[in-house]
Amino acid sequence: MYLTQKKVAVMGAAGAIGSNLVQDLLSTGTASNIVMYDPFAQGLEGAAEEIFHCAYPGAHVCYTTDIAEALNGASYIISSGGAPRKEGMTREDLLRGNCEIAKGLGLDIKAHAPNAEFVIIIFNPADITGLATLVYSGLKPGYVSTLAALDSTRLQTRLSLHFGVAQDEVTGCATYGGHGEKMAVFKGDIAVKGVKLTDLLAGASVNGKTLTAEDWKTIQDKVRGGGAAIIKLRGRSSFQSPSHQSVEMLRGRIQNGGYPWPCGSYFKSGPYAQVMMAAKTSFTNEGVVGEIPAGYPEDMAELEASYKHLCSLRDEVIEAGILPPLSEWKKINPHL
Amino acid sequence: MYLTQKKVAVMGAAGAIGSNLVQDLLSTGTASNIVMYDPFAQGLEGAAEEIFHCAYPGAHVCYTTDIAEALNGASYIISSGGAPRKEGMTREDLLRGNCEIAKGLGLDIKAHAPNAEFVIIIFNPADITGLATLVYSGLKPGYVSTLAALDSTRLQTRLSLHFGVAQDEVTGCATYGGHGEKMAVFKGDIAVKGVKLTDLLAGASVNGKTLTAEDWKTIQDKVRGGGAAIIKLRGRSSFQSPSHQSVEMLRGRIQNGGYPWPCGSYFKSGPYAQVMMAAKTSFTNEGVVGEIPAGYPEDMAELEASYKHLCSLRDEVIEAGILPPLSEWKKINPHL
Repeated sequence: MYLTQKKVAVMGAAGAIGSNLVQDLLSTGTASNIVMYDPFAQGLEGAAEEIFHCAYPGAHVCYTTDIAEALNGASYIISSGGAPRKEGMTREDLLRGNCEIAKGLGLDIKAHAPNAEFVIIIFNPADITGLATLVYSGLKPGYVSTLAALDSTRLQTRLSLHFGVAQDEVTGCATYGGHGEKMAVFKGDIAVKGVKLTDLLAGASVNGKTLTAEDWKTIQDKVRGGGAAIIKLRGRSSFQSPSHQSVEMLRGRIQNGGYPWPCGSYFKSGPYAQVMMAAKTSFTNEGVVGEIPAGYPEDMAELEASYKHLCSLRDEVIEAGILPPLSEWKKINPHL
Repeated sequence: MYLTQKKVAVMGAAGAIGSNLVQDLLSTGTASNIVMYDPFAQGLEGAAEEIFHCAYPGAHVCYTTDIAEALNGASYIISSGGAPRKEGMTREDLLRGNCEIAKGLGLDIKAHAPNAEFVIIIFNPADITGLATLVYSGLKPGYVSTLAALDSTRLQTRLSLHFGVAQDEVTGCATYGGHGEKMAVFKGDIAVKGVKLTDLLAGASVNGKTLTAEDWKTIQDKVRGGGAAIIKLRGRSSFQSPSHQSVEMLRGRIQNGGYPWPCGSYFKSGPYAQVMMAAKTSFTNEGVVGEIPAGYPEDMAELEASYKHLCSLRDEVIEAGILPPLSEWKKINPHL
């Protein structure tokens, strides 16, 4: 009835994303054995009561404000437990505070859940908080990932609305590198009802509609501002889509495949080494395995710029003393 | 992949319950063809965007502020679209205001979705708003119901926590009649790990724990105050459990069975005629079919009192001119 009976720890479970996550794990039939953790006891109890009142058959859900109890023996850990992004704030504003939280989570995982098989980090800037969690957790790179799908699903959404086609008739949408302003939108694989984006940009049409260079720029800008738009429209940052896509990522991990969107991946070496960034990925026994995507020269240039941006964010966190210098990472986590 | 491809209209889709409902309809694989309706355009767009960013394969979700467009051809309608109680508003103001909304919904269903197969009303006081919707929609009694499960799932929750057993080891929890203060808790069918509640009250134990008459009273009081407790703990009224249980009700309707909790039912005749109240129910081709539950004399006395309370609420709405006199119901809806 559920894909797994292994323990799933949801960190930040009193929040909008976390409480939605617990419901979605159960409603999708993904996991039945869930511990809800949050330091905010009152909200946590309320969120847990709501889940109890849903009365999921076969569910074993409990809640705790004790992080050791929450993590102890957990196979899967999903954390949305950072400080939230407020209107007008960039992801980078959140950088230091949330990196400290991620470092703490990594150390707690090392202490209480060293056998965890998959950790998904949602809180922003996820590329960097995911990296900090990986470094301090001591886990293998494939066992820690970040939610990186939303830029791609937002791109799919915009193209679907532009052409008036069903969302899954827009295929191959993928953005790589960093999340948000510095993401790299790869044009090569995108098609609308089978018509390649590059052909559309060269004048082809779908449903009698064309795509001018200006349209494409507007769409990319809208994707970059997709998270900010939700805050403006709803008065709060997005929570349903991060939650649901995290559940889908966990399903990919449990089933060793089938997750179609980019995920945060750590490369030990090569041109994009020692950051965590959205890459082309597959799920195997070793967790999430990243692959450097192939693209047009301008796509690769965007990826290069995005990588450099991630490196500078990482270096900022190293300078702040939250992450150790690169040369010491292997001492803290031998898998890196 | 989804239980139904028929059109589901979610009314109040910008709200906490409505937006959660759309996600849960998709995550549970219940419905793929969903129209989100809300008069609040900005919040509606934000809620719809979130669903688009979830990227459910095979989903066809759209949104509109035009109620005719939303309802046109809908097979299933779920409405959480009442007005919340505001400062300075009396309970009677809320009753009348939401009954006017329910009347409007009923008339809109009659005009735009006369072939609807099931309507679920969630907004409070649901017994009365559900009744008003039924009267004005012209639909068969089995085709309109109200969410009535939460008192029962809250009772299951409290007993599960009291005895320290898994939630689904507490069986047979059911409350009938009105919702909240005036609900009737039926003891007869309740068992904890197979031990009857009546035996527990007579001294039997489960997990080394007993249940005194005082414990039982405390539990019932907590169930009656279950909704208010959520507001206190979360700073907002419950939305996840009403949403998920409504989805489960719809699954019961689509599958002609399998929904285990009480539902709002309308009895044309008999001792509980001409109100909508939580009853023992089954799902058939004719929708939700209510049955008068059998109980101990004190349970039946509680149900009697609950029915009288519902009649007085109904009469208040008739006196206010929102519902017509009982004698005229058949003219408006020949199925009654």
